[in-house]
Amino acid sequence: MPFDSTTLYEGLVANGLIIPSGVQGVFGRNAVFEEVLERFNGLISRLALNDGAEKMTFPPILPRQVFEQSGYMKSFPQLAMGVTSFCGCAADHGELVRRIEESEPYDDLMAPAGVMLMPAACYPVYPSLAGTLPHGGRLFDMTHWVFRHEPSSEPTRMQSFRVREFVRAGSPETVIQWRDTWLARGLELLLSLELPARSEVASDPFFGRGGRMLASNQREQKLKFEVVIPVISIENPTAVCSFNYHQDHFSQTFGILQADGQLAQTACLGFGLERVCMALFRHHGFRPELWPQSVRSLLWT
Amino acid sequence: MPFDSTTLYEGLVANGLIIPSGVQGVFGRNAVFEEVLERFNGLISRLALNDGAEKMTFPPILPRQVFEQSGYMKSFPQLAMGVTSFCGCAADHGELVRRIEESEPYDDLMAPAGVMLMPAACYPVYPSLAGTLPHGGRLFDMTHWVFRHEPSSEPTRMQSFRVREFVRAGSPETVIQWRDTWLARGLELLLSLELPARSEVASDPFFGRGGRMLASNQREQKLKFEVVIPVISIENPTAVCSFNYHQDHFSQTFGILQADGQLAQTACLGFGLERVCMALFRHHGFRPELWPQSVRSLLWT
Repeated sequence: MPFDSTTLYEGLVANGLIIPSGVQGVFGRNAVFEEVLERFNGLISRLALNDGAEKMTFPPILPRQVFEQSGYMKSFPQLAMGVTSFCGCAADHGELVRRIEESEPYDDLMAPAGVMLMPAACYPVYPSLAGTLPHGGRLFDMTHWVFRHEPSSEPTRMQSFRVREFVRAGSPETVIQWRDTWLARGLELLLSLELPARSEVASDPFFGRGGRMLASNQREQKLKFEVVIPVISIENPTAVCSFNYHQDHFSQTFGILQADGQLAQTACLGFGLERVCMALFRHHGFRPELWPQSVRSLLWT
Repeated sequence: MPFDSTTLYEGLVANGLIIPSGVQGVFGRNAVFEEVLERFNGLISRLALNDGAEKMTFPPILPRQVFEQSGYMKSFPQLAMGVTSFCGCAADHGELVRRIEESEPYDDLMAPAGVMLMPAACYPVYPSLAGTLPHGGRLFDMTHWVFRHEPSSEPTRMQSFRVREFVRAGSPETVIQWRDTWLARGLELLLSLELPARSEVASDPFFGRGGRMLASNQREQKLKFEVVIPVISIENPTAVCSFNYHQDHFSQTFGILQADGQLAQTACLGFGLERVCMALFRHHGFRPELWPQSVRSLLWT
């Protein structure tokens, strides 16, 4: 199979693994896709088993206030997705229905709903940490649906996907050591599935001209790493695991202190679960029953 | 414990089972809550094991066109949640950031994103059925996050929650017989967990004055059933499982035919997974390790 976006997308569709919805970057996953995703997520759970992480699950919407405080709109406005609702009376409703029937815009009849779509899996954790952390800090484990407004025919560029995310809050040493441990674990896990993974220094897609400077600083300070695998291109491999060291960004914003009263630091890491599945389908074929025995026995034990 | 919304909410929070977010109807679930939810969902899977359902998983956003075609805005505009995104240039971005910093509205800088939040777990299935069904029809199995704009301090009234949903499409007899089988199964499952469940004819919360007529028709024709359990009130028990017989509403809309060329019919049923958990916590206490042995052994085997 060539490294090519169209070939991968068409293969996934032809094998029933994904079900197009009519909107780019929004599609269903079938039972086989989900089985692979759940099995891979299970391998991560096994790696994390003795870490003592606190598991939390949040719905896919985030309070608008938390979203605004986090500064997401400064850095990534192009990816953000807001939520609106209809709060009108019966007359407004008549107008709403008429406009839909006549294919006219009706967004002026909708009002902001007080929430945004979850931009990243770790965001709901930080406000819940406001105050003083216990000695040794805290560690969280989540699997969340997240959203990016970047409609694309490229299958790994989804408007909504699941991320298995861990967040560490504590002293700088604790946080960096934890990040490094998981960078090694993540790489090893993906290599054990016979995927040509490698880690690299990376940057976030900051918006606009000022964003280039932010991205360059982020690289220089090595605040972001990614584990990448060729999925739709050899030259531009796909990030399947991402490690962000926030220093005290979220701790300043939400008031998170170490046990000794100093400002805490945070880092997070996330596995893009659908992207890992697509990497497996790309490298081992669309039928898991024909995958190398070593890969099968890792996933199905 | 009295049947009272505040008592249940405060008990869930005090025991760490839910984590408030600052927005009503939006909260995190801890590991214990999730374990109960997953175990209960597993019991449903066991009941469905030999039905041959096709499993599908869709992200929490639905193409706007599908949403509009489905007629949701005619019936339930007050519950709908739309999605917006920022598509502006650098100058607009400066203005966006300034307005957020000064707590001014910025929704006029956002544009409709072509998707809506998933209003009900079954909605993405119908457009994918356009065409002719195989002999015997089709059956689908999904667990989806769904959204209702009804902020409330009442814990069972969430803005976002998970539904385990099945959809049957086929002849009227097939569809009604399937619905009746699951009505008995659902009731039996909840009774086996020592919950005081009962089934009843129900209606949807149609909008406005015209809505009362629609609700009354729905009841008369027995198109909707619910399994209800007292959770926050004895007089107004909470629906934990809902059965909707659509007749040919979706088949007409999306063009779904039986193998013999006649218009198909559809029905769906959904278990409100968080509500079932809350019913278990309300009736058996906030600590699953102290639940009746019979309930524990059902869930933990």
